[in-house]
Amino acid sequence: MALIVQKFGGSSVRDYERIFHVANIIADTYRKGNDVVVVLSAQGDTTDELIKKAEEINPRPSRREMDMLLSTGEQISIALCAMAVEKLGLPVISLTGWQVNLKTNSDYGSAKIQKLAGERIRAELHRKNIVIVAGFQGINKFGDITTLGRGGSDTTAVALAAALRADLCQIYTDVEGVFTADPRTVPNARKLDEITFDEMLELASLGAQVLQNRSVELAKRYGVQMEVLSSMEPKRGTIVKEVTTGMEKTLISGVAKDDNVASVSLIGLEDVPGVAYKIFSVLAKNRINVDIILQSIGRESTKDITFTVAKKNLERATEILRGKQSVLMFNDMTTNENLSKVSIVGAGMINNPGIASQMFEALYSVGINIHMISTSEMKISVLIDKSEGDIALKAVHDKFFGTRSENL
Amino acid sequence: MALIVQKFGGSSVRDYERIFHVANIIADTYRKGNDVVVVLSAQGDTTDELIKKAEEINPRPSRREMDMLLSTGEQISIALCAMAVEKLGLPVISLTGWQVNLKTNSDYGSAKIQKLAGERIRAELHRKNIVIVAGFQGINKFGDITTLGRGGSDTTAVALAAALRADLCQIYTDVEGVFTADPRTVPNARKLDEITFDEMLELASLGAQVLQNRSVELAKRYGVQMEVLSSMEPKRGTIVKEVTTGMEKTLISGVAKDDNVASVSLIGLEDVPGVAYKIFSVLAKNRINVDIILQSIGRESTKDITFTVAKKNLERATEILRGKQSVLMFNDMTTNENLSKVSIVGAGMINNPGIASQMFEALYSVGINIHMISTSEMKISVLIDKSEGDIALKAVHDKFFGTRSENL
Repeated sequence: MALIVQKFGGSSVRDYERIFHVANIIADTYRKGNDVVVVLSAQGDTTDELIKKAEEINPRPSRREMDMLLSTGEQISIALCAMAVEKLGLPVISLTGWQVNLKTNSDYGSAKIQKLAGERIRAELHRKNIVIVAGFQGINKFGDITTLGRGGSDTTAVALAAALRADLCQIYTDVEGVFTADPRTVPNARKLDEITFDEMLELASLGAQVLQNRSVELAKRYGVQMEVLSSMEPKRGTIVKEVTTGMEKTLISGVAKDDNVASVSLIGLEDVPGVAYKIFSVLAKNRINVDIILQSIGRESTKDITFTVAKKNLERATEILRGKQSVLMFNDMTTNENLSKVSIVGAGMINNPGIASQMFEALYSVGINIHMISTSEMKISVLIDKSEGDIALKAVHDKFFGTRSENL
Repeated sequence: MALIVQKFGGSSVRDYERIFHVANIIADTYRKGNDVVVVLSAQGDTTDELIKKAEEINPRPSRREMDMLLSTGEQISIALCAMAVEKLGLPVISLTGWQVNLKTNSDYGSAKIQKLAGERIRAELHRKNIVIVAGFQGINKFGDITTLGRGGSDTTAVALAAALRADLCQIYTDVEGVFTADPRTVPNARKLDEITFDEMLELASLGAQVLQNRSVELAKRYGVQMEVLSSMEPKRGTIVKEVTTGMEKTLISGVAKDDNVASVSLIGLEDVPGVAYKIFSVLAKNRINVDIILQSIGRESTKDITFTVAKKNLERATEILRGKQSVLMFNDMTTNENLSKVSIVGAGMINNPGIASQMFEALYSVGINIHMISTSEMKISVLIDKSEGDIALKAVHDKFFGTRSENL
């Protein structure tokens, strides 16, 4: 008997059939003698519809009222799902964010969890109830409803698992687990049995949209064992934990591609100390995250700096920098949106210096030109032309996970 | 400067245009220097749609989960309306039932208000905020969401007005006020400037669906002055209060017709003590409300008892009585659903014995046969064939409110 937290996303509860499908998974887990805590997102497109309704009325509503509005989406999900579990004849209770007393700061729309004691949930579990909790939402010190922003329901699930010292936090998705690459692009991608938190964090930030980083970071901090698995395929998923133990542990956990990347090059910067500091502090002040940074020597004792940002931030980044051109003193600025970032991730990489060259070899073998390279302890990323992204992903994946396993 | 509570129903906030219409009424009241507390129902058909969703999943969901589900309807309304008021540039905050700490018992689906202190609302008013409160909902001692059932939002508004000692509780509806009869049936019906709580209670229970009795009872108990007025026509409505002061006070306040009535006749009951007690206690035990009761002497030292119930209770009432036929010892039972109840209401009636005969005269003048008569201190009701209901209503109304005002 264990305490299991199960999280289901919006598409898993989008209609009558899906809700009963989820209710049956919950019921199976409960009937095996487990304590079950469930976290749900809003149904299907509910959140988008509510946002549309709000924007019709006021394109710039206060974020407090937006959270008041959006939090109804999860409340509807949990009530309907509880009714489905009731229909299956099992004891169940649904609880909102404020009812489980999930305390957050007052950053409406992207609130951070501050505290979660879990008394109410524990009391309900003690009464042998299945507990269904609204994800994505909390309550601040004023007694007002907050929402956690993107990936909020995953984060709620992990926070509950941590507070309740759950044995496992299952994140149900529409994929069967974490794969060595995106199976939609790389047909022979392989499901991993296990992956470490750190590898998962690198993979997620590299565009493998399985888990939100925020939830994995929280799981790592509190030692919550996670499992990513499919709500449609009843089989074991991928376990995410601190240290993996698999016999077949490979050096590389996965290959990821991210098209949501744009580069900015500042040409002809003065070659004096403090230039990089000035550039990146002005971007940081404006909350623009920078990923890869590359500095090279330019002509006539100047230097060039190229960096990448998320595509949506490109316009704002260039505006800000152009506004500071006289201070930063660059001659020219160029941008490139036609980029893909292809990365390999693996905790074993650090002790195996040959990995990078194998990756470059794979790209060379299919004639792909590399624009930028970035390496860290556990990943290697290259920026290439977007049109070559899929070919690159397959080539790199096949190099490490293909049938020619002698490469490993 | 006054403290005004304004309540708007579901049709008043059903879409974008209506919400802004309501927001403008609120803004006008606020700009005149008043403190404004607003109570809203769920938008249009939201509640019905949520009920449909629930029934699809579970035809008999627990009432707790049903309340969890339904309470989202008002929460959406208040958030959207607050955004509209923000758009008009005024300070506003929306609050749910639990946020204003509207304490109820745990009778989910038809909870009774137990306590409402109003600290949070007072604090927001002190900050010069317009406060928009979700009607229909509260919180019980377990911290669970309850709903107040039919007419819940009116009741919320009156409860808030009582707790905050508001100067006026305005109930905005789709009619301009309380009329001497339903204007849809009686074209020359007249709007009343004032009406007493007691008259309003009688009128409401007689089928004039302007205000829910529950809210009027609460207003009477706490001395909350109400105004029934139209959200579409910007003019004075009808004031509902303890004692009316109008110069033109008439003996009769209004005429009402109720088609939601069915009669049951038990024929050939034994003429011994306790028969009526047995019949009506078994109905009361089964929570079936009985309205008019008429007892007459039958043949061969038996008696007949006829009574009326709401139409929806007819089947259950007859089932229950048939099940007890051997105990109650009646020979036969007949029912009639083709009935209308036409009533006149007026606090002045008690001192004017001629009123009843004027009503009967009006019905006689159009050739209508009366099946049953019931009188009380403040009303006279007759049961007639349903097909003659509208003619009867007009005839009685014209008698008391028609151009021939010499009848008054």
